[in-house]
Parts: sequence; C-alpha cells; structure tokens
Amino acid sequence: MSAHSTGRPQPDFPYGPDDATWSAPVTPAGPGNGHAPVIAEPSRDPREVYPSDPELEVKEFEIPAGGLSPQQRKRALNRLETYLVGKHETMVGFQGNQDMAHYQQDLARFLEFHLNNVGDPFQQGNYRVNTKIVERAVLDHYASLWRAAWPYDADDPDSYWGYVLTMGSTEGNLYALAGARDYLSGKKLITEPGGGGEQMVYVQATPPAAGDGERGAQGRDHTYRPVAFYSEDTHYSVIKAVRTLDIDTFAAIGRREYPGQCPVADEWPMEVPSRGGAEGSGEIDVDALERLVRFFAERGHPILLLLNFGTTFKGAYDNVEKVAGRLVPIFAEHGLLERDIEFEPGRTDRRRGFWVHVDGALGAGFMPYLRIAAAEERTSELAVQLRREVKDKVPEFDFGLRVHGVDVVSSLVMSGHKWPGAPWPCGVFMTKNKFRVEPPAKPAYTGSPDTTFAGSRNGLSPLVLWDHLASKSIREHAATAVRALRTTRYLESSLRELEDRLDREDRLPGGGLHVDRSPMALTVRFRQPGDAVVEKWSLSCQPMPVNGELRHYAHVFVMPSVTEEKVDAFIEDLFAEGAFDRPEPRPLPERPAGAPGFAAEVRPLALVPRTGRGFQ
Amino acid sequence: MSAHSTGRPQPDFPYGPDDATWSAPVTPAGPGNGHAPVIAEPSRDPREVYPSDPELEVKEFEIPAGGLSPQQRKRALNRLETYLVGKHETMVGFQGNQDMAHYQQDLARFLEFHLNNVGDPFQQGNYRVNTKIVERAVLDHYASLWRAAWPYDADDPDSYWGYVLTMGSTEGNLYALAGARDYLSGKKLITEPGGGGEQMVYVQATPPAAGDGERGAQGRDHTYRPVAFYSEDTHYSVIKAVRTLDIDTFAAIGRREYPGQCPVADEWPMEVPSRGGAEGSGEIDVDALERLVRFFAERGHPILLLLNFGTTFKGAYDNVEKVAGRLVPIFAEHGLLERDIEFEPGRTDRRRGFWVHVDGALGAGFMPYLRIAAAEERTSELAVQLRREVKDKVPEFDFGLRVHGVDVVSSLVMSGHKWPGAPWPCGVFMTKNKFRVEPPAKPAYTGSPDTTFAGSRNGLSPLVLWDHLASKSIREHAATAVRALRTTRYLESSLRELEDRLDREDRLPGGGLHVDRSPMALTVRFRQPGDAVVEKWSLSCQPMPVNGELRHYAHVFVMPSVTEEKVDAFIEDLFAEGAFDRPEPRPLPERPAGAPGFAAEVRPLALVPRTGRGFQ
Repeated sequence: MSAHSTGRPQPDFPYGPDDATWSAPVTPAGPGNGHAPVIAEPSRDPREVYPSDPELEVKEFEIPAGGLSPQQRKRALNRLETYLVGKHETMVGFQGNQDMAHYQQDLARFLEFHLNNVGDPFQQGNYRVNTKIVERAVLDHYASLWRAAWPYDADDPDSYWGYVLTMGSTEGNLYALAGARDYLSGKKLITEPGGGGEQMVYVQATPPAAGDGERGAQGRDHTYRPVAFYSEDTHYSVIKAVRTLDIDTFAAIGRREYPGQCPVADEWPMEVPSRGGAEGSGEIDVDALERLVRFFAERGHPILLLLNFGTTFKGAYDNVEKVAGRLVPIFAEHGLLERDIEFEPGRTDRRRGFWVHVDGALGAGFMPYLRIAAAEERTSELAVQLRREVKDKVPEFDFGLRVHGVDVVSSLVMSGHKWPGAPWPCGVFMTKNKFRVEPPAKPAYTGSPDTTFAGSRNGLSPLVLWDHLASKSIREHAATAVRALRTTRYLESSLRELEDRLDREDRLPGGGLHVDRSPMALTVRFRQPGDAVVEKWSLSCQPMPVNGELRHYAHVFVMPSVTEEKVDAFIEDLFAEGAFDRPEPRPLPERPAGAPGFAAEVRPLALVPRTGRGFQ
Repeated sequence: MSAHSTGRPQPDFPYGPDDATWSAPVTPAGPGNGHAPVIAEPSRDPREVYPSDPELEVKEFEIPAGGLSPQQRKRALNRLETYLVGKHETMVGFQGNQDMAHYQQDLARFLEFHLNNVGDPFQQGNYRVNTKIVERAVLDHYASLWRAAWPYDADDPDSYWGYVLTMGSTEGNLYALAGARDYLSGKKLITEPGGGGEQMVYVQATPPAAGDGERGAQGRDHTYRPVAFYSEDTHYSVIKAVRTLDIDTFAAIGRREYPGQCPVADEWPMEVPSRGGAEGSGEIDVDALERLVRFFAERGHPILLLLNFGTTFKGAYDNVEKVAGRLVPIFAEHGLLERDIEFEPGRTDRRRGFWVHVDGALGAGFMPYLRIAAAEERTSELAVQLRREVKDKVPEFDFGLRVHGVDVVSSLVMSGHKWPGAPWPCGVFMTKNKFRVEPPAKPAYTGSPDTTFAGSRNGLSPLVLWDHLASKSIREHAATAVRALRTTRYLESSLRELEDRLDREDRLPGGGLHVDRSPMALTVRFRQPGDAVVEKWSLSCQPMPVNGELRHYAHVFVMPSVTEEKVDAFIEDLFAEGAFDRPEPRPLPERPAGAPGFAAEVRPLALVPRTGRGFQ
C-alpha cells in the first residue's frame, strides 16, 4: 500500500499498486454497470509491448489504481529529467532552439494557474485568468517585424489580425488554408438575429448564373472552386490540412478532369516540382508553378498558393518575390485581382481571386533579423559579418512586400519553438482584416467571439514568446541570427574536411559524404550515419533519390543552441570507427512491373509522404 | 539605455525603449529593402486602443526595440502574477479545475526543455526530447477508465488508439469528425511505393455503379455522403469543426434538397432540438433525433452523430444509451451496421455506415469516478454519499457500452483542463484501431508517422495529466467527484435560499433568481448579476429565451477547486446591495417584419452562435 493512501480499505480494482493483482477479475457491483466491468483490465502487461529505453523503464511510469506515492512520483520525474538532460545536450537534428535557460526562472510561477486565452486576443472575455495583454504585445512586435499595419484596428481593412497558436505551424497552416478556402469559394459569416441574441450564419454565395462563369470540361462552374498549389518540399502538415479541409489540389483536378493535358509533364505530378528535384535546393520551381497556375487561372479557378519559407529538411526559401512577379500578371489577365461575390441582392463582397500563404515556420522568425542587420551602416560589425554570410539580398516574404503594386502575402505563420525556442510547440498566425470572412472583433466589446481556431488557447505560450523577445534588444536578436549563419558555414566546412579525412582512411563504404547546403539555409545535409549517432544527436533522416540511386541523408539544424564547440564534438563522433556502419536499408517496395502509378479505379486526392519533408 | 544592453550604439529603429522615439522615421539602408521600412511603425500608440485594466497597464508589457531590462521584465511578470492570483481565487464560472498546487513543484524543471511528442505516441521517433513514455501511461489509464481494450496493440482491431491533445477538446472534436467523415465517405490512406521510400496516398472510393446506391431527389448517390447531427446545446467548437471539414449537416441538406419535408417541424431546424428547448435540461431530444436520423438513413446516407457528455452551459449529458437503443435498429434496417467499401477490385474495406462521437470534454473525465464509487459495497461511506447525490444509475458513455450487441461509441474526447485541471488547455482523444482510415503505427518501427492531428505536440501536457492522475488513488479521485456533486447541491440550495432573502427585501427587479440545475450537472444557472460580480467571479453568461421572454443567465461550475467556503463568499456578494443592477440589455436585432429566416438567395451551411453554448 502506498505511503500516502488513506488507510481505508481499497476496492477490488482490476489492477492495484502491486502488479500481482493485474489479472484479478472484477464483478460489477453498483447500479447501472451491467454492460462491462467498472474499469477495463489490460490484455497484456504494457511493459512487454511498449518501447523502453535503458534510461526509462515503462514500469516506473505506470499509474496504478492506488496512485503513486510522493517518492515514487519523484523517482519517475527524476529519471525523466536525467534522460531529457542527456538528450537535450546533443539535440542538433531539429529546427528547435534548445536555448531556454531563463524560462524556468521567469515562468515557473505561472504553472499554478489555468491560463486560457479563449477567443479573440483583442477582446478580454469573461475568463479573466488570461494573458491577452501579453499576447497583444507579442503580436504587435511580430507585426512590426513583418511590416504589417499595427496596432490592431478593427476598422482598418489593412490592419493585421492574428493570434498566438496553441499548436505549432500545423494549426496556423490549417487556419490559413481554411480561411483561404472560404474566402475563395464564396463563403461568409453573416450576422443574423436569433437564438436570444445575435448569431452568425455561415453561408455560401450562389455561383454566377449559367454562362457567366468559366466552365470546365465537365460543365461545372469554377468561380468558387479554388485549386491548391504547393511544392514537393512542403511540410506534411500542409498536406494534412488540404485533406482535412477537402481542398482540391491541381493534381486531383488535373488527373480527374484534364488527363493528358498537364503543361509540365506527361502525367500530372501530385505536387508542384521543386527546382532540380531531390538533387536541388528545395525551392519551388517557379517556371513550372507559373505554367500550372496559368492553366487553372485560364479556366476560371481561384488560386490558393502555399509557399515555404524555410523547408523542414533542406531549409530552403521559396522565392516569394519572384513568384509574385510571375503570377500577378496572370491574376490580372484573368480577373483574379478583384472580383465581386454576391451573397444576396445588395450583399456583395469585393474579394481577390487568389491567396498566397507563407509557411514561415522557421524562416519568418529568423529572416527579419537579417534584414535588420542589413539595414545597419556598412561599416558596422554586424553588417560586415552579414555580408560574409549573405551574398545576395535578404529574401522578401512578409506583409511589406509589394509587387506590381499588390501586397501579395495574404497570411503568414511562424513556429515559436523553432527560431525563438519554447518548452512546447507554439507559434503565431497573422493575416489582414480585409482577408477575413468574418466580421472583425471590436476591442470594446465584452465577450470573446470565437475568431481563432483553437477556442481555448494556451495562455502560457504568449508569455514564453514575450520572455524571449523582451530579454534582448532587436539588435542582439539580429546578432544571434548572423551568428547562426556563421556556425552553419562552420558546420558545412567541418563536414567537408571530415569527408576528406574519412576518404583518406577509406571509412565511407560506397564513397562520399554527400555534404550539401541550400542558399542561406540554417541546415547542412549529409550521408546518414549509423543508428547510435542518429539517436545520440537526435538526427532527422530521410532517403532521397539522387543521380538514380537512393541516398540516405541526415541533417543538422544550426539553431542558436548549436555552438561551434557542439559541432566539433559531433564531428568527432562522426569520425569514430564504424560511425557510418548501417544495416542494409530495406529495399523499396515496388509495384509489379508495368503497373501504373495508381490503379485506374482509385481516385487519388493527395500524396501523404511517410518519409521525407523533415518528417523524421 | 537598459541595464543589460551591450553598450554598442543602437541603430535608429522606428521605436526605442523610450517612447519619445515612436515616431522617428526609418530610412531603409541595407540591400534589398526597397519595398518597405525595415520594421513597420505603429499607426497609433497601442495603449490608446487596447483594453487595459487598473491592475495591468498596456505600457508595461510592450516590447520595445531595445528589449526590457531584467528589472522591467520582472516588474511586468510580478504585476501579471498578482493580477492572476486575484482572479484565480474567485474563478468559479468556468469548467476548469483551478486546483493545481503541485504542478509547479513537480514540473517547473521541465520548462528547460523543448518537449515535443511529435507524431504517433506509440513510436519513439528520432526526436528524443519527448515524454511519450508518460503519454502512453496516461492513455492506458484513461483506456482503463473508459473500458477500452488496452494496452495499445497495432494488430488488434478492437484495441484503443489515441493521443494526448495539444489543444483542448476542440482539436479532439475536429480530429474525430475528420476521421468520421473520411471513414463514412469512402476515403482511405493506402501505402504505395514512391518518393524514395514508402508513401501513403489519400484516395476516394468510387460510388457504387448507377442503380446500386440510394439516390436522392437530385439523383445523387448518397452512399458516401455523411450527414451530421448534433443538438442545439452543442459547443461552438463542433460547429467550427463541421464548417472546417465541410461536412453537410442534416439542416443544410434538408433545406437544399428536401424543403418542406422535415419530419419534426415546418422548417428544417439548424440543429437537432434539445429536450424542452432553452427551458429544458440541455439534453438532446431523442425522439426528434430518431425521426431525423431515420429520414436520412432511409435515403441511403451514412450517419455522423455527435453527442454531448457535459454541455458547456447547462452541464447536461445526452443519454448515449437511450440514443443507441433507438438508432441501432434503424442502422440495421438500412444496411448501416456493415457495408463494403471498394477502392479498386480486390481492395475492399468492411466498414460501418455510422459513427458516434462523444464530446466528453467535461463528463468523460468525471463520470468514470462515479461509476467506481457506485461499484463499492453498499455500505461504504462513498457509496452512501453517492446515493444521496445520484438517484438514477450512473449514465453510460464509453467504449464499454454495448447496445443490441454493438459497441456504439466510435470516438471520445476529454479536456485535461476541465475535470483534471491543467495550466493550459489539453486533453485526450481516443478511438479504436478498427475505425481508423490509416494503417496503425507499429511500436517497433523507428520514425514517427503522422497519425495525430497536431504533428508537433505539447510534451508537457502528458506530464500534467500524469502528475494529476498519479498523485491520488482512484478511490480518492472518486471521492473528489462525489464531493463535487455535494458542493453543487450546496450551491443550488444556497441560491434558492438567497432567492427567498432577496425576494423578501425586494432586491430582484422584475422578480425571480431563475435557479436551475440539470440532472447530475456540476453547474447551477441563475439570473445574471451585475458586471462587477460577473467580472470578480469570472462568470460565464448567456441570454436564453424562456417563457417568451429573454432571460440573462450566469452559471457557476463546481469544479474540485470550488469549496463550500467559496460558495458562501460568492452568495454574500450576490446578496450585497445592487448586486443585480445591470444596464438594460441591448434589444435583440430583428429582421424586418415578414422577412424569412434567411433570404432565399442565401445558402445557409451552419449556424455559428455568438452567444450561448458556454461561449465565454
């Protein structure tokens, strides 16, 4: 019996604090329990089936019916902390800044409250145990970094609107694409009386009368049928969002309605090609994108484009400015810069027929600081260092970008746990009032309309971002960003030197370390080492077909927590005897020879990668 | 200049640590910055436009370009903590247990790590700074409480599968309804070779050949057109999920395709009626539901039913067992208990044609403990107390419920911040392997397929739930649950006594405190007091049309953190002079006389309540 129990007799539960009682049967005794036991018994002992670790035993974390005594609880937590400290020290494989020394000191006290920023950040709401005042400060700060109109103003169509995400960019991408879909497909939230107050009704505009809109091969009107475009280096969360939202991709429509008519290949690719494919930098192929978008714009479809700004495996930036330069004229030609959406006579919205969402999970947190460094006097130490790292101009991606007079970016997301660093996933979503399908919330109202995706939202995450932003000057943040580029270059050259050393000793079976880095990326990719190294350094790995062979890559992401000293220790591990010994990879499963990509009867809707995309 | 700055000259930013520099213009100086300033300037001073509080000044939380000194940062955090302690003490209006004294002591140390349980909980993945071992223990524990087959077993179709949510039940409801939609509409994830490894493709089964399936008024096949049903007391997050997922409600299809044919009213209601409407308990009207479901089952539609187990305003429980007893025979009659979904010749799934999702945000965390108390010996103190509080049997809602031999519940969610209590929103989603449209993850694999909604997931939330569950025995948790019912009864009788006292002193303008409590609810609703009381006690309020008048209600939720002493203090505040003085409510906006509910040209898709549903 555990030390803290009450001393009263324990009921006869299916399993007790002592595992000897696992299999004790239960006879339901109370009223209304005729259907099944009070509690389900386990079919097997979890410790036989679940993965365990030499440092973490399944048994210590099980929660028995008797609970755990304070000592048992503390022992388990101590084990976990020890394990985590070890992994934390050598975490270099993911886009997560592990440098968060002052969060515990500053924020631990807030673990005593349920911090819930339910509803709109600009309305206080009746749930007052919130941190919305902090959230607004964080949003304003990012709005200034992303060159949006701020502070938030419900009456200004160009004002930013956004919120701090409770998930990472997955939530932001989903919410952006949901908004884009509704905006482009003629949906709207309108206010109606009813239900004892005001209520909103979600409505669909009727397509233009027959003959007005462009029609496709099957005679369907396309005015409210948005088509999604994203590259083959896009994060899997975007594909999940597209599936969840039931948005048609160009591939799904192309294969279904325009077989054999693809303007960039014999068969419609499932995603927009990346420049140079798997061997390339990871950037979207702007030429292919332009041809694909033109095909659908000509047929009257609104265009939903997702661009990456810092891809998860190669760390690549889509060229937002160049893409906009090519597409805006197409939008202009096909009436997509402005169109009228009629909901009922007298109720008309003027909207764009396109939406550009930038997934800046990593890049949107990082790049503004390079722009700030670039704006310094030519002779400043920071500007000099930056020129050593960045030959071209700092790429554009945010609300300040105007191309042919159009502010092309409709929405933007950033992950808080990537560049800033956070104890859990979080992030920022931002758009402008004029792109929202619901009426903007007015700060003066009480109550808290449900304008965000999550509803109940993590109120500690804004504090984490605030603490990160406020603890340094912008210039110090900029210096950190430039230093990360320097360290990435150091990693790259260290890996190239390592390749020479390994080659000289003939330690690379099959030859080559395959070191590669995309322009300005914070990551370097290279041949995947053996499992021990992968596990110790938490390396993210993926196979890629290069030069007709399947290569297995790993990468290191140089977040601010990765120092040159850590790079040195990592390189030493890679130089150790047998570091690259790996079991033969499983051969790729193959369709029977001659079989097509998909059976004709199957209607593919989207590709869902299980490997790649920095997935792990 | 702040105390911690580097001493180097600061660049000329648009605003500095001193607000005198707000309006200083910026001249872009660096390369590539021709489009806009380096950082956007504010159009106004945020402190003029954002809501502030006597205890919280906007100014103190702003993040200037120079950052905040450690002293400034500490001052702001101290202000916030002081404010939160005040609000926390008197938080009685929401379904959030505020009792979380030991989280800080046990868990503060984990704020130093980025805890990310990315991907499937049963696969370790390469990102090792995770708490999946703790997550699995929490899931197993809830599986036992909800009488599912456990531990997780990829090879057992009846095994539970689930994960700890990063949001609250909003994420769980969305994920459940997304799974239900895909399951019912003939979608599937199939594994294909390609992309340098295995990949999954999301595919759509072809509807049965013409003549095979049931067809509707417009000749469309209904086999893969699920119809959603949920009551008018359903939480707004469900409506948001339905919109996001583009699922047809019975109301949308009914109004569009079967005008004038509604089996329960002259016009199709937007949601399934609740028993007794606004004056009733908040439970779904089982008779109306049965007639509505039969209408669509007869026409060949698969049925997607969402039931509430603890509604947000009235705390009501839909009668899952009774609903199942009525609907299973309808499903049997119309071939919805089992049907074959053909993806291509030889690739067939056997699936149900219905899905029952239980939104147990509050109830799923609470009710198992009543069942446990009910299973004790009749003479135990706990069983005696329980019988005082619960006259009928403890309602059924989980995976252990079988009706006519069918395990009716397909999926279940619970919020971690409601019954258990947590520093931020979190929760648990659970279903069974056999209801998933994707292949189950195998624990032995490395890598971490993206089977959850969030992708990157909050790894501290499982620790919070674990710490909560493990700190007591199940019997102690059961005693807490019974005590909450006792305290709710105490609140109810205190409010009724208060009504007498107020009436005697003629302090209730218009008369009546309108005290009401639904069966077994943890909440009591009553006439909304004035703003000062609402704000001090964080009361959630909503107007409801009762007896032909619009009444304004507030409610108190009796979570474990609400004691009888707190109830006494609250009642005293309500008895104070002027406690019920409120400004005249704004009159309800009205459509012009004779106007229909919606203009004929508008196609309503879903109702989006702005008030009610425990929104705030």
